Amino acid sequence: MRFAKGHGTENDFVILPDPGGALELTPELVARICDRRAGIGGDGVLRAVPATGDSAGWFMDYRNADGSIAETCGNGIRVFARYLLDSGLATGPGVTVQTRAGIRQVRSEADGRLTVDMGMPELLGSGSTSVGDRECAGLRVSVGNPHLACLVDAPVGEFDMSSPPALDPGHFPEGGNVELVRLTGRSSVTMRVHERGSGETRSCGTGAVAAAAAASHASGSGGDLSGTWQVRVPGGLLTVTFDGKTSWLTGPAVIVAEGELNDHWLG
Amino acid sequence: MRFAKGHGTENDFVILPDPGGALELTPELVARICDRRAGIGGDGVLRAVPATGDSAGWFMDYRNADGSIAETCGNGIRVFARYLLDSGLATGPGVTVQTRAGIRQVRSEADGRLTVDMGMPELLGSGSTSVGDRECAGLRVSVGNPHLACLVDAPVGEFDMSSPPALDPGHFPEGGNVELVRLTGRSSVTMRVHERGSGETRSCGTGAVAAAAAASHASGSGGDLSGTWQVRVPGGLLTVTFDGKTSWLTGPAVIVAEGELNDHWLG
Repeated sequence: MRFAKGHGTENDFVILPDPGGALELTPELVARICDRRAGIGGDGVLRAVPATGDSAGWFMDYRNADGSIAETCGNGIRVFARYLLDSGLATGPGVTVQTRAGIRQVRSEADGRLTVDMGMPELLGSGSTSVGDRECAGLRVSVGNPHLACLVDAPVGEFDMSSPPALDPGHFPEGGNVELVRLTGRSSVTMRVHERGSGETRSCGTGAVAAAAAASHASGSGGDLSGTWQVRVPGGLLTVTFDGKTSWLTGPAVIVAEGELNDHWLG
Repeated sequence: MRFAKGHGTENDFVILPDPGGALELTPELVARICDRRAGIGGDGVLRAVPATGDSAGWFMDYRNADGSIAETCGNGIRVFARYLLDSGLATGPGVTVQTRAGIRQVRSEADGRLTVDMGMPELLGSGSTSVGDRECAGLRVSVGNPHLACLVDAPVGEFDMSSPPALDPGHFPEGGNVELVRLTGRSSVTMRVHERGSGETRSCGTGAVAAAAAASHASGSGGDLSGTWQVRVPGGLLTVTFDGKTSWLTGPAVIVAEGELNDHWLG
């Protein structure tokens, strides 16, 4: 079984190219592959299969590290597009990626970063959670997947994110990601994120969009998201731009290695 | 640059085959490769170069995850031998491995596990450390590299090993590994280990030998180490046998994947 490992702002993935769509990817196998000591290690798996229906391009079959299915992932899409471009499965500068949350267009920037059209996030009203022993109020945001983005006054490093923050099942029937967001300037924030199924990660693309949406919303624009936001995450720097019609996520993506999973290990 | 990833009781390594001995392995490159999100990820790197001097076989150039040089590693040797056997660089059932702590003989067992002659550990007297907020008395043991093996009464899971335990620099001028060891039967222990340069790991082969030595010593055999000890570590089960002349470490080893590091990533 061929694989590649790559990361975008240290949100890392094992990519499994499956041009024939023949790979049976059980939750157990995904969890074994994502095990950082007994497997390859990653925040999730990105299986690449030809797009279905009338869509051109490739379908990104994204799974969390625990084997559960997820709609999409903004960092994952960039890593996925980087892999398609590097391996010749797609030609640039534009790449069409089909996800469970819809079609996403990706483009290569001149500086090597990749920009993804993330769609316009939906603002769903207020919510709250507890992170460690602190209560946090936030904005519920859908970026294809559900988020609670909490603006906080304290440095984000002070919070204990070792346990999953509790979410109101009425608001989050399938769980959700929680972002802690602190304003650091007129158009910049720092963010930490807890992803359902993966725990705290070094970065999350849809989380960065949710964080920028919450920051824009709090800055007085109300429901009209606007501006270009620098989102500093533990694993690097992402840029989110709202143009009135959609949101654009720009950031780096790199393929670290490629190879073959050992048949003895696969069993 | 070719690589493989493998593990022995979840002590995991990136193997770099270097038959020409041409690879310049800087501490920075080792640390980048061992980074679990931005690199491949591992507790250390095992570079395979032809043995020097009159020795047959291969030299295991072992580096910790932070890039520092280490003498040897009992789990690393098994993974190293498994790689040599699987890739045809050595023929079994016996494999000779040169390490910075001397020549080690490895043999394949019928059940697929690998046994390493670890040499006779040297008992160096008592020592102590603090693990979290608890004081621990232990036995200083050299297994090629320095250990403090502490027999404890409480379950090993109760200790806080998130920080490096402080060691007396008079006893440990170059630092050392610390094992927490609890007797669970007449010839079985559970163990947790903090390795210098790597933090807490899922397993440590030389640490298992040190743990068995401390258990044997405490069981009344005094300086004469004896018996066969089952050592349960977080990543699995190891067996240590003292035969009066040397110690034998037996355990599993598996190669997970093989491949090529990306030139773009190497930079």
